[in-house]
Amino acid sequence: MKASETFVKTFKTISKDETAISAQYLLRAGYIHKEMAGVYTFLPLGLKVIENIKDIIREELNAIHCQEISMTALQNPEPWQKSGRWADQDIDIWFKTELSAGGEVGLAPTHEEPITNMMKKYISSYKDLPAYVYQFQTKFRNELRAKSGILRGREFLMKDLYSFSADDASHMKFYHQVEEAYRTIFDRLNIGDSTYQTFASGGIFAKYSHEFQTVLPIGEDTIYYNQDKSVVLNEEVLNDEVLNEMGVTRDELESTKSAEVANIFTLKYKYSKPLDLNFINQDGEREYVTMGCYGIGVSRLMGVIAEKFADDKGLIWPESIAPFRYYLIAIGDQATNIANDLHSQHPDLFYFDDTDNRPGAKFADADLIGLPYRAVISDKTLQDNKIEITNRLTGQTSLLTIDDFVAKL
Amino acid sequence: MKASETFVKTFKTISKDETAISAQYLLRAGYIHKEMAGVYTFLPLGLKVIENIKDIIREELNAIHCQEISMTALQNPEPWQKSGRWADQDIDIWFKTELSAGGEVGLAPTHEEPITNMMKKYISSYKDLPAYVYQFQTKFRNELRAKSGILRGREFLMKDLYSFSADDASHMKFYHQVEEAYRTIFDRLNIGDSTYQTFASGGIFAKYSHEFQTVLPIGEDTIYYNQDKSVVLNEEVLNDEVLNEMGVTRDELESTKSAEVANIFTLKYKYSKPLDLNFINQDGEREYVTMGCYGIGVSRLMGVIAEKFADDKGLIWPESIAPFRYYLIAIGDQATNIANDLHSQHPDLFYFDDTDNRPGAKFADADLIGLPYRAVISDKTLQDNKIEITNRLTGQTSLLTIDDFVAKL
Repeated sequence: MKASETFVKTFKTISKDETAISAQYLLRAGYIHKEMAGVYTFLPLGLKVIENIKDIIREELNAIHCQEISMTALQNPEPWQKSGRWADQDIDIWFKTELSAGGEVGLAPTHEEPITNMMKKYISSYKDLPAYVYQFQTKFRNELRAKSGILRGREFLMKDLYSFSADDASHMKFYHQVEEAYRTIFDRLNIGDSTYQTFASGGIFAKYSHEFQTVLPIGEDTIYYNQDKSVVLNEEVLNDEVLNEMGVTRDELESTKSAEVANIFTLKYKYSKPLDLNFINQDGEREYVTMGCYGIGVSRLMGVIAEKFADDKGLIWPESIAPFRYYLIAIGDQATNIANDLHSQHPDLFYFDDTDNRPGAKFADADLIGLPYRAVISDKTLQDNKIEITNRLTGQTSLLTIDDFVAKL
Repeated sequence: MKASETFVKTFKTISKDETAISAQYLLRAGYIHKEMAGVYTFLPLGLKVIENIKDIIREELNAIHCQEISMTALQNPEPWQKSGRWADQDIDIWFKTELSAGGEVGLAPTHEEPITNMMKKYISSYKDLPAYVYQFQTKFRNELRAKSGILRGREFLMKDLYSFSADDASHMKFYHQVEEAYRTIFDRLNIGDSTYQTFASGGIFAKYSHEFQTVLPIGEDTIYYNQDKSVVLNEEVLNDEVLNEMGVTRDELESTKSAEVANIFTLKYKYSKPLDLNFINQDGEREYVTMGCYGIGVSRLMGVIAEKFADDKGLIWPESIAPFRYYLIAIGDQATNIANDLHSQHPDLFYFDDTDNRPGAKFADADLIGLPYRAVISDKTLQDNKIEITNRLTGQTSLLTIDDFVAKL
């Protein structure tokens, strides 16, 4: 992409109502635009980051035989009434609206009910199990307060996966496959080392659920951990019984703020029973389907990664999800010709700042936008036919001959 | 994809409330699932068709320097109040809801207002123009009646593109580029020959808009055309003044039912004036930005193409958007081994029906699901080491040696 061809500009300042550093930088650098509190448009660079995160998640889920679909925002109340999650006193974050033709509908805050309902069409025998179905979908949650930019939105993008199994053993086998896939995903997103699989409260049918919590000073959650004993607990399960079971004392735990980026839940019959999703087992008996659900907050992840790696100059994207690999700056006519060639041969690798901004402004924008590498060609580097590559994270600079650089692309 | 690995099944019959043949087949073949009238989930095969249509549109729009973003469903009333499109008596298809924190919000039926509002941040000088920005976005329209499956939905997928230009001349230049891009898109979707660019009513700032209408017996529109004079009119502009201008008489026109798959509109100042999107021109004077908007109904297109090519046995997808190219059937153990090899080497080309259904049921499903080619390997074809390829559209069958077939993949 050439900077001169995009409508987006960077800004030195923005309105003061954004407190999270990630939100400030994402707005200033032109990744997102705020429609209202908790509701953000993704601009070209931001959409590329989102699509890159989705691609990584999609690859890892497809590898464990999950199938992608796309469900709807508008929700028929009926299945939600059956599960007891329609009334505003039960679920307080619904957006509800009315059909012209009559009848109330809601905007999906999650999709357990409609997918359980849909699977009644497709599951009737043990031969139809297991089934693993996921989507990337916009979720709507009518939060009283929405802050921290895309870390907690009223409209946000989630990956939600649902598993349908015949029994506990096959359910748990898949549950562990998802744990593994999630660890791979967070490794690929460069937050594997700071993302902990955490015990959290489980609900009716399971003692625990698991959350994936990324250490983050502005996170909304608090986790308690003991690295020697590999124990990580959400605050909500920090009680004597659980500590005893885990073999740790309260004194042995350290705490940190964190952001929940994913969760996995054994639902068992929580939705299959009220919605009557059942199958005939190998003995000819009718049983409820054992379900699990597995979420990843896609737009939140973008915010967490932005927040986590930012420094005092701007964003720093991991290579795996950066919108482009190189922020390309040319100083002088000959350098500009070479930069134009590089860009036209590899438009997906280079964000070429071909504006008439002064070099200092371009260097500042390179730091703000935070691509993994800055690539500078100038009359000075061209004396040795070289290009200067600077790592945005480490600040390390190296000079490569242009031929060597091109050969490595 | 292997049929045994997908949760989706085909059905011989469905409930009788779907009248469109495309909706019946799409539901029976497992491309879509009905959540409620006008609201459909896309299943794995359906999502692939949608993504293939999006890829074609994206390629052609990127080629004319359009930039992709993703806006939001939730809408702040303010810009819509300024343009006079918020009140229910002005726009009767709004879904509206309330924020917990107080205040009404709407679900976007289209995005002229929020994008005009957003571009105020990015456009201030003639140097910032032109800008071409598009998205694939779910739109919400509170239709009193929703019928014909995905041909007219309450929640549906649209590509909407907006252009921002300095003057009429540069606006019209881009308008013609979009006309050309749209013709290429419809050619690639195999409906170029039956899709007419049609004069329709233009609104305040332009005499005409243009629609792209695909001839379709169950279409909601009627177009009037004279092929010799290359005149195609929407019913809404069929009056003496227009006929006179076009140089045709009413008697020279034939009519047909059609479905609107796209439209292009000169908006000029319709939104830039009330929302005060202006710029400083080369003479230092302040002017309103000249706008255009350009829509394509993505999910509707899927319905139109399904409806248009279907026969009495099922769907028939054009190769450019089919979810897979071959419906692979193996009869006998040796054939199954070869089919497994073919599928594992080209999982994106083959939908391998490895179920234990009888061959007759597999042939019927191949016709219903409507991939461009059926590929059959059996003990009989293997006597000459061959595979039987049948074109779903023409019914033509040819026998190829497996080596020749593999070489062509």
